[in-house]
Amino acid sequence: MLKVNADRLWESLMEMAKLGGTPRGGVCRLTLSDVDKASRDLFVMWCRDAGLDVTIDAMGNIFGRRDGRSPWLPPVLAGSHLDSQPTGGKFDGAYGVMAALEAIRVLNDAGLETDHPVEIVSWTNEEGARFPPPMVSSGVFAGVFTADWAYALTDDDGKVFGDELRRIGYAGPTPCAKRPLAAYFEAHIEQGPVLEDEGTPIGVVTGAMGQRWFEVECKGEEAHAGPTPMERRRDALVAASHLIVRINRLATETGGRATVGRISVSPSSRNIVPGSAWFTVDTRHEADAGLDVMENALRGAIANVQAATGVEIALRPFWSFPATPFNPDCIEMVRASAEKLGLSHRAIVSGAGHDAVYIARVVPTSMIFIPCERGLSHNERENITRSDAEAGANVLLHAILGTASGGAFKSASF
Amino acid sequence: MLKVNADRLWESLMEMAKLGGTPRGGVCRLTLSDVDKASRDLFVMWCRDAGLDVTIDAMGNIFGRRDGRSPWLPPVLAGSHLDSQPTGGKFDGAYGVMAALEAIRVLNDAGLETDHPVEIVSWTNEEGARFPPPMVSSGVFAGVFTADWAYALTDDDGKVFGDELRRIGYAGPTPCAKRPLAAYFEAHIEQGPVLEDEGTPIGVVTGAMGQRWFEVECKGEEAHAGPTPMERRRDALVAASHLIVRINRLATETGGRATVGRISVSPSSRNIVPGSAWFTVDTRHEADAGLDVMENALRGAIANVQAATGVEIALRPFWSFPATPFNPDCIEMVRASAEKLGLSHRAIVSGAGHDAVYIARVVPTSMIFIPCERGLSHNERENITRSDAEAGANVLLHAILGTASGGAFKSASF
Repeated sequence: MLKVNADRLWESLMEMAKLGGTPRGGVCRLTLSDVDKASRDLFVMWCRDAGLDVTIDAMGNIFGRRDGRSPWLPPVLAGSHLDSQPTGGKFDGAYGVMAALEAIRVLNDAGLETDHPVEIVSWTNEEGARFPPPMVSSGVFAGVFTADWAYALTDDDGKVFGDELRRIGYAGPTPCAKRPLAAYFEAHIEQGPVLEDEGTPIGVVTGAMGQRWFEVECKGEEAHAGPTPMERRRDALVAASHLIVRINRLATETGGRATVGRISVSPSSRNIVPGSAWFTVDTRHEADAGLDVMENALRGAIANVQAATGVEIALRPFWSFPATPFNPDCIEMVRASAEKLGLSHRAIVSGAGHDAVYIARVVPTSMIFIPCERGLSHNERENITRSDAEAGANVLLHAILGTASGGAFKSASF
Repeated sequence: MLKVNADRLWESLMEMAKLGGTPRGGVCRLTLSDVDKASRDLFVMWCRDAGLDVTIDAMGNIFGRRDGRSPWLPPVLAGSHLDSQPTGGKFDGAYGVMAALEAIRVLNDAGLETDHPVEIVSWTNEEGARFPPPMVSSGVFAGVFTADWAYALTDDDGKVFGDELRRIGYAGPTPCAKRPLAAYFEAHIEQGPVLEDEGTPIGVVTGAMGQRWFEVECKGEEAHAGPTPMERRRDALVAASHLIVRINRLATETGGRATVGRISVSPSSRNIVPGSAWFTVDTRHEADAGLDVMENALRGAIANVQAATGVEIALRPFWSFPATPFNPDCIEMVRASAEKLGLSHRAIVSGAGHDAVYIARVVPTSMIFIPCERGLSHNERENITRSDAEAGANVLLHAILGTASGGAFKSASF
């Protein structure tokens, strides 16, 4: 059975990790930085070395194409992203790109011709760390955003996305837009602890959680911490704290996830009762109905806390996207590939956003997760094992092959 | 019965409020600023106009002395402070100084000679807004701090207290140290809502709450908000929120006061579970035993939350001072003066720190509170009524007279 070259895969990962490598073993490859350009140049060189036909689109997405027996058939696409968080890890994104490249290299080594063309991709600005929001260029590809809108994004220094893309020479001539594709597969580290905890090397990703992000503003009354009796206070932080405890519980109760990641109070003085408090809420659920339940529970909690404390509380929606079930045929292709390879696997829903989440809107899509150490990601200590890297790349290889040559979405054996 | 001139008192308050006056009706008279110097110059001029013998001590405390029939007797002292918060009100501090000055003026008008000398005082840096901590110079007077230590305090720009004191010409030749005084009376706005709520013009202050300030550090684990299941999280902010709710309750349960005024989390990202949280706790109680109960309850809550959440929580004492009961004779003198004037009054414990709290360690002391609008203080909207200002100054006048001429701590009538 066709297998990836695990050493070559690992060496490519380590070679790529040198670009923007940090002293603590992570990487800093901010979108459209000089280091991002260097990683693109290396990837393009490797694509050309592998005989691929390289195309850069208007968003700087890099596609490498390996033709098939029937070049008129829609290609099977695989990949991920090469940009990182400011103190990111070596594997978030890069793993999916290098696994896709390794699949191409194996096909080349075997001299194997697929029916469909196979393409690999590195999407621009998945992280959104320098130019928020995340998943910008897969979003443009899927028609969620326009390229003009993305070109106008600015970083904290006021530098403009479009200018920076041109500066590094990756504003390509091809429009960034959806086109016929047989399937999209993305291999990625789990970024959570589930697979490692269970000792399961392969997560068959059945979809991505929907997300609703909010901001909560609590307006009480500023007061002197000494002379103001407790029963006379309208303490905005106490109201916020009641809500944060409640938000944490309602996620558990509804089987979703909820996080308050930022909070600030005003006037922020040790001996002044906070007059106002602001915090963010990130809710996620694999079903939109679950998101509804969470939002209703949050609104109910706000009404209760408001009534109990006299603090006025406003909930403002900030950002959202719906739950995204992946394509059943693509999911089955991943599952069957793991099965065929004798790898234990489990169904898993992605709690994080990925390029695949937007691509799934316009192309049959699924993902392959591999374990990462202690679930750590967006962290310089992010780590994976060579054997898990190998296992995930083998599943990706066979999902590509099964789709590109077995006839899209029929099981196949090589 | 001898009474203050309410118009003159109010005009002096309004005249003083012009120095550092803000567009929103407050004042900004930061310690040792040019505006502070201007307010000192005005106060010294008014003292001299009133025939007082002015002394500046090494901390810049300004004393104005009116001799008595028996100049060898310990003086009766009254006053407060003229410095303010950056966006402070017209009455916090200034009211006590102007009320004391008005008492002197009334004694002059009446040609009345007291047995004891009477002195009025404006203490340097009560607020501690520019040069923390608060109550610095009354603290030096009472032997809580040394003058050398105070001289070395710096502001946010690195300017040094001693340099600034010399710069404005108020580093006086007299050592700042305790000396025989018959009593110290300080009139002040309540800075809380109790008197206004009850419609009671006079608070007979029986002491000041003890204070214990803490910092709490919660160390959990940073994690991605999406892929990390709720039951796997060690969310530092959720642990902090449980504690903040509990701290608020334990103050009510123990009859004390507790405030969390500042909080911060790290890494402070919308979609990252906070790995650490830090917040401040200000606990106050009129009895040290009450502070003990609160601290024990806080330590118990920390142990419980730590066990329930897996977040490590450290409690660090930051600052404290014990509960300060005022002198029973001074308290009775204030009460009897209010009674004699036909003013309704109630016993009240100061939740805030005042110069009187340190002075009480070395001199028989009490305070007189008057209502302030909505309890607002440390706020440009701070406000009082003319009639309450008059009432409080009359009580101060008769407390001074009762002590300086009635024979210290025996009731007297004028």
